[in-house]
Amino acid sequence: MLGLMQDWPLLIHRIIDHAAIQHANREVITRSIEGPFHTTTYADIRARSLKVAKRLAKEGVNPGDRIATLAWNTWRHMEVWYGVTGVGAVYHTLNPRLFEDQLAYIANHAEDRLMFLDLTFVGLMEALQDRIPTVRRFIVLTDAAHMPQTSLRGAIAYEDWINEVDGDFAWVRLDENTAAGMCYTSGTTGNPKGVVYSHRSNVLHGMMCMAPDVLGLSSRDTVLPIVPMFHANSWSLAFSGPMSGARMVMPGMKLDGASVYELLEHGKVTITAAVPTVWLMLLQHMEANDLRPTTLERVVIGGSACPRSMIETFESRYGVSVRHAWGMTEMSPIGSSGMVKPDYGELDREALFDLKVKQGAAPFGVEMKITNDAGEDLPWDGKTFGRLKTRGPAVASAYFRNEGGEILDADGYFDTGDVATIDPYGSMQITDRAKDVIKSGGEWISSIDIENLAVGHPDVAEAAVIGVAHPKWDERPLLVIVRKEGRAPDRAEILAWMEGKIAKWWMPDDVVFVDEIPHTATGKIQKMELRGQFANYRLPTA
Amino acid sequence: MLGLMQDWPLLIHRIIDHAAIQHANREVITRSIEGPFHTTTYADIRARSLKVAKRLAKEGVNPGDRIATLAWNTWRHMEVWYGVTGVGAVYHTLNPRLFEDQLAYIANHAEDRLMFLDLTFVGLMEALQDRIPTVRRFIVLTDAAHMPQTSLRGAIAYEDWINEVDGDFAWVRLDENTAAGMCYTSGTTGNPKGVVYSHRSNVLHGMMCMAPDVLGLSSRDTVLPIVPMFHANSWSLAFSGPMSGARMVMPGMKLDGASVYELLEHGKVTITAAVPTVWLMLLQHMEANDLRPTTLERVVIGGSACPRSMIETFESRYGVSVRHAWGMTEMSPIGSSGMVKPDYGELDREALFDLKVKQGAAPFGVEMKITNDAGEDLPWDGKTFGRLKTRGPAVASAYFRNEGGEILDADGYFDTGDVATIDPYGSMQITDRAKDVIKSGGEWISSIDIENLAVGHPDVAEAAVIGVAHPKWDERPLLVIVRKEGRAPDRAEILAWMEGKIAKWWMPDDVVFVDEIPHTATGKIQKMELRGQFANYRLPTA
Ligand SMILES: Nc1ncnc2c1ncn2[C@@H]1O[C@H](COP(=O)(O)O)[C@@H](O)[C@H]1O
Repeated sequence: MLGLMQDWPLLIHRIIDHAAIQHANREVITRSIEGPFHTTTYADIRARSLKVAKRLAKEGVNPGDRIATLAWNTWRHMEVWYGVTGVGAVYHTLNPRLFEDQLAYIANHAEDRLMFLDLTFVGLMEALQDRIPTVRRFIVLTDAAHMPQTSLRGAIAYEDWINEVDGDFAWVRLDENTAAGMCYTSGTTGNPKGVVYSHRSNVLHGMMCMAPDVLGLSSRDTVLPIVPMFHANSWSLAFSGPMSGARMVMPGMKLDGASVYELLEHGKVTITAAVPTVWLMLLQHMEANDLRPTTLERVVIGGSACPRSMIETFESRYGVSVRHAWGMTEMSPIGSSGMVKPDYGELDREALFDLKVKQGAAPFGVEMKITNDAGEDLPWDGKTFGRLKTRGPAVASAYFRNEGGEILDADGYFDTGDVATIDPYGSMQITDRAKDVIKSGGEWISSIDIENLAVGHPDVAEAAVIGVAHPKWDERPLLVIVRKEGRAPDRAEILAWMEGKIAKWWMPDDVVFVDEIPHTATGKIQKMELRGQFANYRLPTA
Repeated sequence: MLGLMQDWPLLIHRIIDHAAIQHANREVITRSIEGPFHTTTYADIRARSLKVAKRLAKEGVNPGDRIATLAWNTWRHMEVWYGVTGVGAVYHTLNPRLFEDQLAYIANHAEDRLMFLDLTFVGLMEALQDRIPTVRRFIVLTDAAHMPQTSLRGAIAYEDWINEVDGDFAWVRLDENTAAGMCYTSGTTGNPKGVVYSHRSNVLHGMMCMAPDVLGLSSRDTVLPIVPMFHANSWSLAFSGPMSGARMVMPGMKLDGASVYELLEHGKVTITAAVPTVWLMLLQHMEANDLRPTTLERVVIGGSACPRSMIETFESRYGVSVRHAWGMTEMSPIGSSGMVKPDYGELDREALFDLKVKQGAAPFGVEMKITNDAGEDLPWDGKTFGRLKTRGPAVASAYFRNEGGEILDADGYFDTGDVATIDPYGSMQITDRAKDVIKSGGEWISSIDIENLAVGHPDVAEAAVIGVAHPKWDERPLLVIVRKEGRAPDRAEILAWMEGKIAKWWMPDDVVFVDEIPHTATGKIQKMELRGQFANYRLPTA
């Protein structure tokens, strides 16, 4: 027996329709790539998305075609997403921080048919266009006045392109499981792999993210998504923003401390989301210039582990509540959120920060487990580490063209490649990437814990821990440190400072100082590279 | 091209699974029907729901079978819902306030196979059981110690019944569109009609309700659902409660002012939901005894129009934020919520209350329109009334056994039978039931507006306005009033007080005082009955 409820498929266009009807005049402010601030509304974004859709149809784009975007967070990028999905095509975000070879590989693998790109990337694509022949045309996200001379195939300014049609178009009616978006993720091995979001997964994930214990977005919020649309769906904000009717501030390309601070204030932002590196720049800028955020209430931090000192600074110095979140491209991306459940009782500041360092609990719509290498469930005791596996309607079941083969276990769980503990109340803490875990005498040592501790030292700017070969223990931790400018802590000082704060057998066997630690295109520490650099390093204990 | 996301159907058991994993020890406290407070947890409710499911399977219940409940809001009622849906059967809530004939009609129409009932209703069902032969067995929601002597067919105490099995059971895997629940609604004409919820609609509706602009439920809330599970799914709370991990307080059968006050305090409730009548009793009790709620933050009021004076009292006197909501059985039930969008700018108290009197805006997942009788769209100007029509994944598409035939218009909208205005920012205000609107000289007069005004008079306990035949104007409004105890306002005083607060031509042509206004089983004013009583009333103006 079936229910007798309406057939209302979870389609992305319904989000922008809702925003345009219920929150028509809510502003979306962007620091445009051309320079000045630009203001539009949800009603206008919808109207222009309909033009995008109509223009795409006229361009000969068919349902299922992949349409690349190489763009910062702007109102135009949002219009493209809604227009592309509204015609049944698939937005495919390219990460401009990738190497040219990777970009070419990805665009070819996806067989992108058109590309929307920001002014910033015209030069890059001029150099690359011959290697990506499937892209028939390049649409530059600007107007005629700012359109550069360019050799890009079929180049046209976005504003000219959409003005070739009116907005009289009906969103294409689709099955909710239709592909809507695509984002490649550089796995641990091999080529990048494509994650393919559906209309359903993006809508459900957006609804999940609106909840108070996740992002808690309301129509009275102003949200600044610093986390890029080209990286894991900007943590749902291009969907959950309009869904909730929150006002939006889009940062464009300038993510330095001064620019972000200006945006927070100019835009009267109440909630924002980004990776720790961005917050580091903001905090340094505010400290150096004796500034405070005046409207900001909440900051969502994820993408890599948020250091305790950062939580402390935001909360204690600036009165901004921190929510640490974890996720990944394969999870749309939110997987957990640092909700403070009542189970923890009354927490003093220190205990609260200890809790907030954890990546948080799975909201409704995400199931988690930790297992050992044999796939057996491990206890949720807050101590035992295991491979973190997840299930849910917005979690990948496979990669595009089945690269990497079967990625789910027998119970349908996806192996995140992270190693984590989960405490009795469900708060998960990432201890490592599975491949970065240090195996010392058969036991696992979490590199992230040691790194977090090390960056808490006042003279340390950045820290990374890798396992280095050891004759007796197999592997032992080596701590690699970038010192803060003008500071010169030495090995003994760092080790003495760490002493007693972690288990004895977790203490690094050595400390080295470097000028720079290598990062991936998405801002994470490149441990593989670092392990290469120190492959022949001889520990003093060895 | 399809997305590559996991197949994770939206099934109700996932809600209680989530709660039992992520919020295992969160309490569910009930004022039990037997008397004392009873405390359990989500983990325990899930464990016992699995027993219910297993026991139902053993009872021979098949997927699709309707299982009646005639019960107050208690933990056992929740267990039954999760158990019933977890085995693929359909919970069918019976409203104990219905007449026996209606109950018999409904149980027979649904062909209920089993019935779970509270101790309160054993007598009622003993009298009725011969008229509802499809019900093979009656399970009394109590334990052996409290089990009465009864002639009910196959009667057994719930605790004995579930203890015949262990909880080793796997939820039945279902299509998410499978029927999950059923609730009959007494339409305007003819017999009650069955609304059939699906797993998908209940899950999506629950997610929608969690959002900050609807109920805004978090794991730090304690929610008291006074609105009954037997009436419109207790406004999602039996789902959105566990979904968000909110602590729950269940009121059992005692809904008088003193009992509700005690619950609020004993349970440390932060948010609660009920119809205005319940709040009237609470407010009177608090006023009479000089009490204040000490933990309550938010109150959700709906089911019938919330008088402005009630909003004012909660907000100004008690510092409790009021959210006025509108919905109906056919909408799962939430259709709108009194979110205060920033479009309204800075509001002083009076302006805020004026806004809060409106039933609010549609959240993501509900689409609205107002039309004239010809089905043409009317403007959202806050003045033009029209028939309110809605669309969404948790809105009915038909009634059980297709009673009432086609209920959607050509665009798939359901006609709610309400008449409303919608303002330019999307806030809807119910002005009447379509059948209660007063047609004066071809123009519509909203009875609800006049009623709201009248109950604002300090001596008025309740007010109803109906149209009475008039030779010149066709119909004119008659105001029917129940005076507050010990007060004796007269006609002239009431009319003088209303003067200038509504349009002149809306002023009632007469006022009559009665001891009681008839109510429906769901607590609404029974206008049809009232019109019957005053069918031959001669207006002084006639
Ligand atoms: N907040 C409200 N204000 C006015 N009428 C309401 C409100 N909420 C519900 N109703 C009425 O109750 C009807 C639904 O009744 P029911 O299906 O029994 O819940 C709606 O169609 C409205 O007429």
